[in-house]
Amino acid sequence: MDQSISRQLQPIFRPRSVAVIGASAVPMKWGNDIILTMQQDGFRGAIYPINPKEKEILGLKVYPSVLHVPDPIDLAVIALRTEQVPRALTECVRKGIKGAVLISAGFAETGEKGRALQDEVTRIAREGGLRFVGPNCMGIFSAAADLNLSLPPGVPKGSVAFISQSGTFGGIFSREAARRGLGLSCFISAGNQADLDLADYLAYLAEDPLTQVVVMYVEGLKQGRKLLTAGKALAGRKPVIVYKAGRNPSVARVTLSHTASMAGEDRVFDAVCRQAGFIRVDELFGLLDAASALSREPLPRGKRMGILGTGGLCVVLADTCVSLGLEVPELTRKDMEFIVSDIAFPPHAPAPINPVDFAGANRTALEEAKVLNRLAQLDEVDGLISNTPLTFADTSGQSAEEQEKLFSAAARLLAEITQTFKKPLITVGLGDLVPSHEGLEKAMQAAGIVSYASPEAAVKAMAALVRYAEIRRRFAEEKGK
Amino acid sequence: MDQSISRQLQPIFRPRSVAVIGASAVPMKWGNDIILTMQQDGFRGAIYPINPKEKEILGLKVYPSVLHVPDPIDLAVIALRTEQVPRALTECVRKGIKGAVLISAGFAETGEKGRALQDEVTRIAREGGLRFVGPNCMGIFSAAADLNLSLPPGVPKGSVAFISQSGTFGGIFSREAARRGLGLSCFISAGNQADLDLADYLAYLAEDPLTQVVVMYVEGLKQGRKLLTAGKALAGRKPVIVYKAGRNPSVARVTLSHTASMAGEDRVFDAVCRQAGFIRVDELFGLLDAASALSREPLPRGKRMGILGTGGLCVVLADTCVSLGLEVPELTRKDMEFIVSDIAFPPHAPAPINPVDFAGANRTALEEAKVLNRLAQLDEVDGLISNTPLTFADTSGQSAEEQEKLFSAAARLLAEITQTFKKPLITVGLGDLVPSHEGLEKAMQAAGIVSYASPEAAVKAMAALVRYAEIRRRFAEEKGK
Repeated sequence: MDQSISRQLQPIFRPRSVAVIGASAVPMKWGNDIILTMQQDGFRGAIYPINPKEKEILGLKVYPSVLHVPDPIDLAVIALRTEQVPRALTECVRKGIKGAVLISAGFAETGEKGRALQDEVTRIAREGGLRFVGPNCMGIFSAAADLNLSLPPGVPKGSVAFISQSGTFGGIFSREAARRGLGLSCFISAGNQADLDLADYLAYLAEDPLTQVVVMYVEGLKQGRKLLTAGKALAGRKPVIVYKAGRNPSVARVTLSHTASMAGEDRVFDAVCRQAGFIRVDELFGLLDAASALSREPLPRGKRMGILGTGGLCVVLADTCVSLGLEVPELTRKDMEFIVSDIAFPPHAPAPINPVDFAGANRTALEEAKVLNRLAQLDEVDGLISNTPLTFADTSGQSAEEQEKLFSAAARLLAEITQTFKKPLITVGLGDLVPSHEGLEKAMQAAGIVSYASPEAAVKAMAALVRYAEIRRRFAEEKGK
Repeated sequence: MDQSISRQLQPIFRPRSVAVIGASAVPMKWGNDIILTMQQDGFRGAIYPINPKEKEILGLKVYPSVLHVPDPIDLAVIALRTEQVPRALTECVRKGIKGAVLISAGFAETGEKGRALQDEVTRIAREGGLRFVGPNCMGIFSAAADLNLSLPPGVPKGSVAFISQSGTFGGIFSREAARRGLGLSCFISAGNQADLDLADYLAYLAEDPLTQVVVMYVEGLKQGRKLLTAGKALAGRKPVIVYKAGRNPSVARVTLSHTASMAGEDRVFDAVCRQAGFIRVDELFGLLDAASALSREPLPRGKRMGILGTGGLCVVLADTCVSLGLEVPELTRKDMEFIVSDIAFPPHAPAPINPVDFAGANRTALEEAKVLNRLAQLDEVDGLISNTPLTFADTSGQSAEEQEKLFSAAARLLAEITQTFKKPLITVGLGDLVPSHEGLEKAMQAAGIVSYASPEAAVKAMAALVRYAEIRRRFAEEKGK
């Protein structure tokens, strides 16, 4: 079934030609903006604006209907008034179009009359063998086809797919993702899900080679069993991270008027997540925080953390680890000696019991990197969290050449952690107390070392890695049986 | 007692002269850095470096001991090796110095021997009528005296006092505060609290006219009853926000070696917070998030929120409000009509039931400000949260003059909410989808409207305002009895 869905969605996510039904010559209107954005973001296929009253829009020849277009059309994007949609879709079916994105709103989310219209549209599509996204959605973005029907122009391309029951989150997330150095493989504003639903999209993304991580904003759950099946098939291969809004029954009226979603029992949703192997986050941008780590860091073999830090942050990091189910093992005397060998700890510093605390003493980037690298070599450490890698590095009195040498050596030791030892290293970049070293930062990024602005975000990201490693093991075991 | 403590701490927080015992000629050393920072941040009193081996440090005459200084000294800052501290403090007492900051570490946090030394130092001070901060601390900052013994130079001055059991958080927080447009009235690295403790600092800050909000980073609780008494005396007048680390018993070894603190039972601490009227936050920078709102926004009369937003963010905001104990009341038909009168809502937009949802339609900054202003006029709304004030404002096709007019009108309507109606308005500045308007942003800041980068941070800040309003009412009632 998965591969059949994947084939059915090719015209939508990898179209060679797109008709924009409801194309407009008026700037800022949907039917104009979509074409402009497609042009700006370099869609390589043909674009056919459809509008009975215009001749040319944004330099393109306009057709009165899809039936007038001489060439085959893969995808129809429909941005018409609600009552015009059934006829337009009927014409699409007659033209042999197999995929559509229904931007138009005014359907089930508005009440009984709208629901009847939505049912009619769905019937037309089903009978005509056409699959569609929406209605009441804000379009899609597909990196595979350089197709942007939804997001602000200039979307950074990458490996994260985002399925959202809120269209406005598309733009917000693509900016926030860029800020975190993440790119998108796909964005889907799911809208009312009259035809295609979350489960279908998951099945498609399982086969999409560009997608490595899936994040979902969910308001309501329909067809829980179908979602569970699709989720299970995907989550063993790629991490799926979910944020669910409408957890409180008293806000049901809000989700209902937004996407005609029934929020449902939160614990039912939680059970679906657990069984499907989804990682559930409790903050909106927790989706991107988790995706950052899951798309770049190696998976830990267990949940035992080695921590390097200074003072209070050692306490906060260790405490937050334990609160989130991670462990912070005490080290043996032999391990401690190994870790601090040839590093001068200040006499008043506590024993490096893990967390290893430099206790406010000056030290170099290289010394910090050494400690982290050695922590990573211990069998009883599965992942590393550090609050100050290299931020306190005192390089005054050194020549530029000496500094460069020191930073390259530090960068090599850090890269070894993620790339040779295959253990995740997550850092907390706090307060910018000391100017950072550009070369070192780049080297850390290249090594997949992810940084967060708060200790809680860092530990939550590590917990997501641990959780996904557990999910992978569980699915592998179930397969093995 | 409060006023007596306040008087006793004058030499520490408003000294006219400071001796730096353990002054150093070597850059980056504590005994050098402190003097340099005092000079850079414009301390107006006399500075006396103390070091038997130097003649001049940073342009200042050096004395072999405090007893050689001809003029009176208010405050001694001691940055010596542990074992040298008792003798230095004895000399301070003989010189008649009444206040000290003990930077030196190596005391109770290192074990039995250190504890004995700490007890000796405390005895010397008690017998000599000298009060001290620390030991094992990273100094203080006092805006009242332009005295910076602790933070990176250039601390923004303001109304937030920060008491911390971790010294390294001083620098991190002063940067983070600046990023949020907040300034500090005071920073106290409390260290081991051998003499002065959290309760004493709270008593002092209650009387400090510069301090409007107090934030605390706490690892361990000692003298719970004393803290409770001081807290109660303060919290009715100024908000006190607390983050407690070391919540999990298994990290006790970390706090113990850090500040010799016993983390204690978390529920005991929670009970103290509730009785004292402290606002407890569960994330480190939640301290600053709450302080931002509490130092600038008016207090709400109740917990009923009016929300303006778009799509999914309406759901997330309303849902998060309910999760945090706030209410999102449904509006009457009459109220709805009042709110949207003369504003064109798109036909497919849901009824403005609260949250008011513009459903992706273009609208101007003025329309958004109007809706918020009218929501604020309703009796059943105590506070406002808006996810997109003015970010989606479409001003294309307008002259610069027209735009200016529109933005000023919007700014006036928004300022009226906080300043005339005295209701808090908190915004979520998401993703920078549309370039913001500088004049409008400034006007909003001037009106005390606070913005956050995530919906959860915004709602948590509003919940802190609601919580503090409740605390104020409770204390007023208790007084009234």
